Amino acid sequence: MKTQVAIIGAGPSGLLLGHLLRQAGVDCVVVERASPDYVLGRIRAGVLETVTTDLMTRLGIDARMQAEGLVEAGFNLATNDRLIRIDITALTGRHVMVYGQTELTRDLMDAAPDRDLTVIYEAGDVALHALESDAPFVTYSKDGETHRIDAAFIAGCDGFHGPSRKAIPASAVREFERVYPFGWLGILADVPPCHDELIYANTDAGFALASMRSKTRSRYYIQVPLTDRVENWSEERLWDELAARFDPISDHQVTRGPALEMSIAPLRSYVFETMRHGRLFLAGDSAHIVPPTGAKGLNLAASDVAYLSDALIAHFRDRDDAALEGYQDKALARIWKAERFSWYLTKLMHRFPEDGAFEHRMQAAELDYVASSEAMQTAIAENYVGLPL
Amino acid sequence: MKTQVAIIGAGPSGLLLGHLLRQAGVDCVVVERASPDYVLGRIRAGVLETVTTDLMTRLGIDARMQAEGLVEAGFNLATNDRLIRIDITALTGRHVMVYGQTELTRDLMDAAPDRDLTVIYEAGDVALHALESDAPFVTYSKDGETHRIDAAFIAGCDGFHGPSRKAIPASAVREFERVYPFGWLGILADVPPCHDELIYANTDAGFALASMRSKTRSRYYIQVPLTDRVENWSEERLWDELAARFDPISDHQVTRGPALEMSIAPLRSYVFETMRHGRLFLAGDSAHIVPPTGAKGLNLAASDVAYLSDALIAHFRDRDDAALEGYQDKALARIWKAERFSWYLTKLMHRFPEDGAFEHRMQAAELDYVASSEAMQTAIAENYVGLPL
Repeated sequence: MKTQVAIIGAGPSGLLLGHLLRQAGVDCVVVERASPDYVLGRIRAGVLETVTTDLMTRLGIDARMQAEGLVEAGFNLATNDRLIRIDITALTGRHVMVYGQTELTRDLMDAAPDRDLTVIYEAGDVALHALESDAPFVTYSKDGETHRIDAAFIAGCDGFHGPSRKAIPASAVREFERVYPFGWLGILADVPPCHDELIYANTDAGFALASMRSKTRSRYYIQVPLTDRVENWSEERLWDELAARFDPISDHQVTRGPALEMSIAPLRSYVFETMRHGRLFLAGDSAHIVPPTGAKGLNLAASDVAYLSDALIAHFRDRDDAALEGYQDKALARIWKAERFSWYLTKLMHRFPEDGAFEHRMQAAELDYVASSEAMQTAIAENYVGLPL
Repeated sequence: MKTQVAIIGAGPSGLLLGHLLRQAGVDCVVVERASPDYVLGRIRAGVLETVTTDLMTRLGIDARMQAEGLVEAGFNLATNDRLIRIDITALTGRHVMVYGQTELTRDLMDAAPDRDLTVIYEAGDVALHALESDAPFVTYSKDGETHRIDAAFIAGCDGFHGPSRKAIPASAVREFERVYPFGWLGILADVPPCHDELIYANTDAGFALASMRSKTRSRYYIQVPLTDRVENWSEERLWDELAARFDPISDHQVTRGPALEMSIAPLRSYVFETMRHGRLFLAGDSAHIVPPTGAKGLNLAASDVAYLSDALIAHFRDRDDAALEGYQDKALARIWKAERFSWYLTKLMHRFPEDGAFEHRMQAAELDYVASSEAMQTAIAENYVGLPL
């Protein structure tokens, strides 16, 4: 098979990129290791910046999102007994939208056939070849046969564990990483949220997050030691913890319900520099990971895709490679700022085992300062709602 | 001797407090361990917030400060080759004043005789007694005799090493401390500054600060390891370092001149909670230390003194103890925010030996973000110029 852009990965980055290229008349094929159901089974964040919703609108795949998504004009930082509301709309004139990543992926998936976007699922042994030549290609196995896609460019949208990043020789890259000394124990349940807007809480018992996917589906998290295991937690024990932390500060008591999903996720900051190697371009989680605090992961993938799609379209339509040459610098400038914000919010809202009494007071003083300063609230709001492209 | 308030320490805190009390007709006596020349020999910061200059104006001891002080409308954060100007006046409508702490102390000292403010210098073995009673007193030795001052209250303005804080039993207090893994090697010289406004620089070689006391007197610092010693540095070597860091970014080349003073100071964050024990109230460095980054030390002492003088005056003039009862909470709320800002600026602008590549990128991303965000510049400016009383 021959195409203009071979896209590795059919998560939201790969599908967004595929749709944007197809809309502009650029040929592409998306290759995905997993099945559609597996892709949709991944539970991820659901707070969308304008950068992300704008791409869905530009594609015209936004009808369900506009109908079902919750427009959020603010969010909250909390200490034990105090809620600090960050009024995003008053401070920035913008808002975020709560719409599950799973739903967004489903919308992009459902729109693929009508828009002539080819997605090959359950492609095994995906491998990238000849990246430094003018004729790169991708191979994969399916139904017992090996297939080959020749392309002008390859886009690595296959996440942290995919083959794209690994295809770049170590001598050409620099990795930056921070692993945090705790994880997030999360529970998803079909219960109404305890508060209209997200609450990030730094309590004496550690971090907790009350969030929602919709008016009837809630997502809660608490900080747990890295050594903890989900088997150590009954649903009841987790609901007890959540009620203890959120009942004093939220609009409603925490409503309990059977877990649709319960798991522990580690927190990591990671940036892979380079985002380009020959004919391969990386976008999204294949090049960078943020801790979930601040919900920047999907939105950062969306801004990568916005830059990369524009650059590829300029190449094929206008024979202009300036944007492709500038892709990495442009993307990294925004990525590092989002990494900074995710790291800042993680440090502000969690209890770090290595921190002493002075550092706890620094967190308290920062929250006290945030509560009193419109300038600092604006700084937080403009990062939360998404820095400009 | 009998008085209403015995003040321990004739640095800027003690003298400011003494003058404010005398202006309101409250009796007080200041007791100082050192000689006037020794007090004036201490070289300290010289960036005054409005909180501090307002007190001097209220006292009418501001003529020389207004004539000789430099009004500064901004200051700069810098990386190797980039200057980020924080336009304090445009962002906050206020400004700071560059006027050496030594000069301010001299003005307060010179004004004491005319204003009937008694200062006893070279008082040895200063000790505080009966703090938990209604009749506290201070003893000291001078000219071979032991003297005693009976007072209604004692104000501990005697800095980090003075006897006041140590007179409070350990069971009644909580200490918060952070010691930083580097020091500041400073040089003072009668040369014009290399730039009109202060420059805090985070360079690959570490932190450096270009500041001034006047248009003809400069004060420079560079970060050095805690193990370094001033004997390891010739003036020439230090000027070479300073020129390498500031010549690429400042208005003028670094002008060299003989050192009036050259020393290494450690950096420490420290807060002592409680600020009151019985009839003793602490103010300034006796209760808290900030690293010099951001020049908050003297200004924080001034806000303590503003609160404490008002409270003592209310007690003696209006028989109202509400402000005395509220002193600690009011002072600590501002202290912790200033501690936070000093800590933030220290962390942003220095190279920490324990930091890796990720943390360096976080500093770079933060500076890049500051350069692009009016909200974040405003947050920095409002802290630098001083949060409201």
